[in-house]
Amino acid sequence: MARQLSRWAICCLRVAAPGLGWGRGRGCEFSCASFGRIMRPDDANIAGNVHGGTILKMIEEAGAIISTRHCNSQAGEPCVAALARVERTDFLSPMCIGEVANVSAEITYTSRHSVEVQVNVMSENILTGAKKVTNKATLWYVPLSLKNVNKVLEVPPIQYARKEQEDEGKKRYEEQKLDRLETKQRNGDVILPVINPEPHTVGYSQSSLIHLVGPSDCTLLGFVHGGVTMKLMDEVAGIVAARHCKTNIVTASVDAINFHEKIKKGCVITVSGRMTFTSNKSMEIEVFVDADPFVDEPRERYRAVSAFFTYVSLSKEGKPLPVPQLLTETEDEKRRFEEGKGRYLQTKAKRQAQLQQSAQQ
Amino acid sequence: MARQLSRWAICCLRVAAPGLGWGRGRGCEFSCASFGRIMRPDDANIAGNVHGGTILKMIEEAGAIISTRHCNSQAGEPCVAALARVERTDFLSPMCIGEVANVSAEITYTSRHSVEVQVNVMSENILTGAKKVTNKATLWYVPLSLKNVNKVLEVPPIQYARKEQEDEGKKRYEEQKLDRLETKQRNGDVILPVINPEPHTVGYSQSSLIHLVGPSDCTLLGFVHGGVTMKLMDEVAGIVAARHCKTNIVTASVDAINFHEKIKKGCVITVSGRMTFTSNKSMEIEVFVDADPFVDEPRERYRAVSAFFTYVSLSKEGKPLPVPQLLTETEDEKRRFEEGKGRYLQTKAKRQAQLQQSAQQ
Amino acid sequence: MARQLSRWAICCLRVAAPGLGWGRGRGCEFSCASFGRIMRPDDANIAGNVHGGTILKMIEEAGAIISTRHCNSQAGEPCVAALARVERTDFLSPMCIGEVANVSAEITYTSRHSVEVQVNVMSENILTGAKKVTNKATLWYVPLSLKNVNKVLEVPPIQYARKEQEDEGKKRYEEQKLDRLETKQRNGDVILPVINPEPHTVGYSQSSLIHLVGPSDCTLLGFVHGGVTMKLMDEVAGIVAARHCKTNIVTASVDAINFHEKIKKGCVITVSGRMTFTSNKSMEIEVFVDADPFVDEPRERYRAVSAFFTYVSLSKEGKPLPVPQLLTETEDEKRRFEEGKGRYLQTKAKRQAQLQQSAQQ
Repeated sequence: MARQLSRWAICCLRVAAPGLGWGRGRGCEFSCASFGRIMRPDDANIAGNVHGGTILKMIEEAGAIISTRHCNSQAGEPCVAALARVERTDFLSPMCIGEVANVSAEITYTSRHSVEVQVNVMSENILTGAKKVTNKATLWYVPLSLKNVNKVLEVPPIQYARKEQEDEGKKRYEEQKLDRLETKQRNGDVILPVINPEPHTVGYSQSSLIHLVGPSDCTLLGFVHGGVTMKLMDEVAGIVAARHCKTNIVTASVDAINFHEKIKKGCVITVSGRMTFTSNKSMEIEVFVDADPFVDEPRERYRAVSAFFTYVSLSKEGKPLPVPQLLTETEDEKRRFEEGKGRYLQTKAKRQAQLQQSAQQ
Repeated sequence: MARQLSRWAICCLRVAAPGLGWGRGRGCEFSCASFGRIMRPDDANIAGNVHGGTILKMIEEAGAIISTRHCNSQAGEPCVAALARVERTDFLSPMCIGEVANVSAEITYTSRHSVEVQVNVMSENILTGAKKVTNKATLWYVPLSLKNVNKVLEVPPIQYARKEQEDEGKKRYEEQKLDRLETKQRNGDVILPVINPEPHTVGYSQSSLIHLVGPSDCTLLGFVHGGVTMKLMDEVAGIVAARHCKTNIVTASVDAINFHEKIKKGCVITVSGRMTFTSNKSMEIEVFVDADPFVDEPRERYRAVSAFFTYVSLSKEGKPLPVPQLLTETEDEKRRFEEGKGRYLQTKAKRQAQLQQSAQQ
Repeated sequence: MARQLSRWAICCLRVAAPGLGWGRGRGCEFSCASFGRIMRPDDANIAGNVHGGTILKMIEEAGAIISTRHCNSQAGEPCVAALARVERTDFLSPMCIGEVANVSAEITYTSRHSVEVQVNVMSENILTGAKKVTNKATLWYVPLSLKNVNKVLEVPPIQYARKEQEDEGKKRYEEQKLDRLETKQRNGDVILPVINPEPHTVGYSQSSLIHLVGPSDCTLLGFVHGGVTMKLMDEVAGIVAARHCKTNIVTASVDAINFHEKIKKGCVITVSGRMTFTSNKSMEIEVFVDADPFVDEPRERYRAVSAFFTYVSLSKEGKPLPVPQLLTETEDEKRRFEEGKGRYLQTKAKRQAQLQQSAQQ
C-alpha cells in the first residue's frame, strides 16, 4: 500500500525545474491536471476526423475539474466552478479515431471572483508515437456556492513565479471583462425560416436541433456543463457547413464564447446555426443557444449563449478545398457578411503579426 | 402522402401561409418543432444502416418535447407528457451513418386528457443534398402532474384550421382508445426457455436482455422515456431476426404499441423477443417488456409493454432477401403463426387499397 | 508557442527523485500515464455509487493506452495491445457521482510477448479535497500485429531500477501463466434456464443480457475492448446480486479474469450470471461471456470469458448488510457453493496474512 501510494504521488506530481517556477509542494496537486482518452468512432465524422465539439467538451471538463478543485482548496463554503467564458480557440491539427487525446490543464491567473485556466490538447498516435498540438485554450470560471447557486464566492489567489506573469494575467482579465460586457448587448437576434431557399444562400444551410437536458449533461449544481453546450453548438455548425459545401468539413476555430446565462436540468435547448461569411477557404457560422425551461418554471425562453464557429472544407487527402461563396439576399445578411469579413481580416492580421514576431525572435 | 409532405414542408419551415392557419404568433413555437442530428457509427449496424430503435427514440423525444411544451403552455399545474401509445410505424427507406436525420413534430389533435403528435423523419445526405422520407409516426401523450404522477391533467385545446381536421382527429382518438382497451387484456404471455433448439425454430432465435434503468433513461418524473423502451425492444427484435436468418437485417415496421404501465428509475427491465411469423421476405417478432422494481418496492414483476416488429433481410446491395421459413413445433407456436399471417395479410390488403386510392386521385 | 510546449512537456513529465528509480529520460512518456474524469449519474446506481464496471472500463482503457504506446515505441511492425488477463481486483472504497476518478497507469514488467501494467484509481472529492484509493489493478497485455491480428509481436523490454523489481515481475509473470492455462480447461459450463424458481435459489436471481458489438466498443483491430466486456459482466453480476437481496449492492472485488478469445465487431454477446456462494455479508456471482459471430462467419458460438464477481449489500448509511443465504438445490449448485466457500476462505486468509505482515513492518 505504502509503495503504491508513493508511486501515485510521483506520477501525479509535476516537479518543477528551478527557474520555471512551477509547483513547489502543493502546486501540481491543485493547479495542474492531465487526462487522456482514446478517440472512438462516435467521436468522429465519417472521414475519421474527431469533431471539434468532442475536443471542446474534453477541454471544458478538464477546466471544470481543476478550477473547482482550486476554489475548494481552502476551508470555506463548498462551490462548483461554472464556465463563464472561453477565449478564441484554434484547431491546429486534426485528431483521428484511435488516437489518444492528451489534455492538460493549468491555472494561470486568479482574480477575486474568477479563475483563468489554460488547457492544452495534444493528439498522440500511439502506434507511431507522433504527437501534435491540436489546441491551446483559455477558459474563465466563476465559483458558485453549492448551497446558493446565485452567490459567487471568492477565489483563493495563486502564487506567481514572476511578477510579470501576474501583470499579464491581469491584462487578459481586463480585456475579457470588457468583451463580455459588449456581447451581452447583441444577443437578441433570431434565425427565421426560409421557404424553398436557393443553394448557397443563408436559408439553404441554416439548421437547428433540440436537446432535452438530462442528468449526465449537468454539474453538481444541476446546470448544463459548458462543454456539453459547446459540443451541441459544434454539431449544428458542422451540419450548416456540410450543407453549404457538401464535402468533408472540420472545425478550424471558435470565437470567444461568453456564457451569460445558466441552463437548468430539464430544460429543452434549441441550438440553431446560420452561415454568416465565407472566405475562399473558410466558412463562418453563427450559432445561438436558446433555453426553454418549460416545466416547473415561470420563465420565458431565453438566449443562453451565442458564438461564431469557423469551418474549412477538406479533400479526401486532407487538403483545404475552395468553398462556394455565400449568397446574401437581405440587408441583414449583407451586413452580417461584412461583419464576418471584418472578423476574418482581423484574425488574419493578428496571425501575421504573430508570425513576424516569432520570425524576429 | 402528398398531404403529409406538404405538412412536413410547412412544419419545417415554420412559416404560416395565410389560410393554412399554422403559426399565428405563438403557434409554431408551441405546437411544432423541428431538429436534426447526424447519425453516428453507434446508431447503426455493421452494414451502416441506422437501427430502427435509434429512429424510434428520436421520434419519441420530439413528441415528448412538443407535447410537454403544449401541456404547460397555459398557467396551471406543471406537468410532463408521458407516452401512452404509438400507432403502427413503417420504415419507408433506410438511413445511413453520416446522414442527417431531420425530425419534425406537430400537434394534430387534443382530447381532454391526451395529445396526438405527428412526427415525420427525413434522411438527408448532406453531401448530395438527397432527402428521403423515412417515417411518419403518430404518438399519443398524456400529461401527468409533476407533483403527483398519478394525476392526469387537462390538455389545453388546439385551434384547427378546418372543422374536418378536428373531426378526423376525434375519429383517430376513438379508434386508438378501443385498441388500447383490447391489448390490455392479452398481456399475460411469457417466453419460456428452450434447451438445445433446432435452427429456424422459435426457440432457436428467441432472445432476451436485461437493462438497469439509469437516470438518463428517464423523464423529469423519474419514469423511463417511451423512446428508450422502444429502442431496447428494437434491439432485441433485431437480434432475434439476425439469429434466424444470419444476414443483415433492418426494421421494416412496428405495430401499434400501448404503454399501459410506467417503469420507474432503478427498475431492471427484461426485454424478450420471439419470432411469431415469416412470410417469403419478412419476419414478425413479438417483444415483451417486463419491469422488476426489485429495490425498495413491494411490487412484483409486471408486464409493461408488448409489441410486434417486422424485419426484412437485406443483401449486400440492399435488396430484400428470401427468409428461411419459421419452424413451428407446439400448438401455441402454430396458433401465433396463423395470427401473424392474419396481421400480415391485413396490412398487405390495406396497403393495396391505399395504392389504388392514390392512383385514382 | 515554445512557451506553451515546454509547459506541456513539464506537465506531462514525471521527473524522478533520485533513488526512486522512475523515469530516466523517456520513462514517463512511454511507461506512465494518468487520466481523470468526473463521475456522472449515468456512471452510478440510484444510490449514487459508481458502478464497478465503469471503473474497470477506465482501468482497462488506461492499460490499453500505455501498453500500446510502449509496444510501438521502437521501430517495427505497428501493433495494438490486447488485454489477456486482469488480476484479482478489490474495490477498496466507494466512488460517488460528482467525484473525479484519477487513474494512473505504469508498466511494471515486460516478458517477451506480454506487458504487465499496474493501474491505480483514486477518487477525489473536488469540493473537500478528500482522496481515497479505490483500486489497485494489475493487467497483462499482448501486442497483436495491426496487419495480422493472429501474430503476436515482441515487446520492447523496460529498464528496471533495481534487479529485484525484475525478479518479482518474472515471478508474477510465471504465476499468471500457470493460472491462465488452468482456467482454459474449465470453460464449458452453461447457465440453464429455470422455470418458476423459489426466492433465494440460484435460478431465482440468474440473469443474462445480450449486446450487439458496435464500433465504439472496439479497438483499432476491430475487437472488443476488454474493459467493455468487464463493464457488461459487472452489469449482469450486479443485477444478479440485487435480485437476490433486493437492496443497494456494490462490487467488492473481481477475481482474476483471463481473456482467452477475442470478440469481433458485429458479434452478439450473451453475458449471463448466476450466484455461486454467499457468506454472511457477501455474494459471489459467476459470469460467462459467450460470443455469437452470427453474420458473415462460419464459426459457432463460443465462450470468450468467464469470471467471479463479489458483491456486498449496503444500508442507506453505507454499512454492509447481512445477505440472505443462497439456497442450493442440485448437486452442481452444492458443489459450486463449496468451491466458492473455498475461494472465500482463501481470500480471507490471504488478507489476514497481509495485515499481520503490515503490522510487523
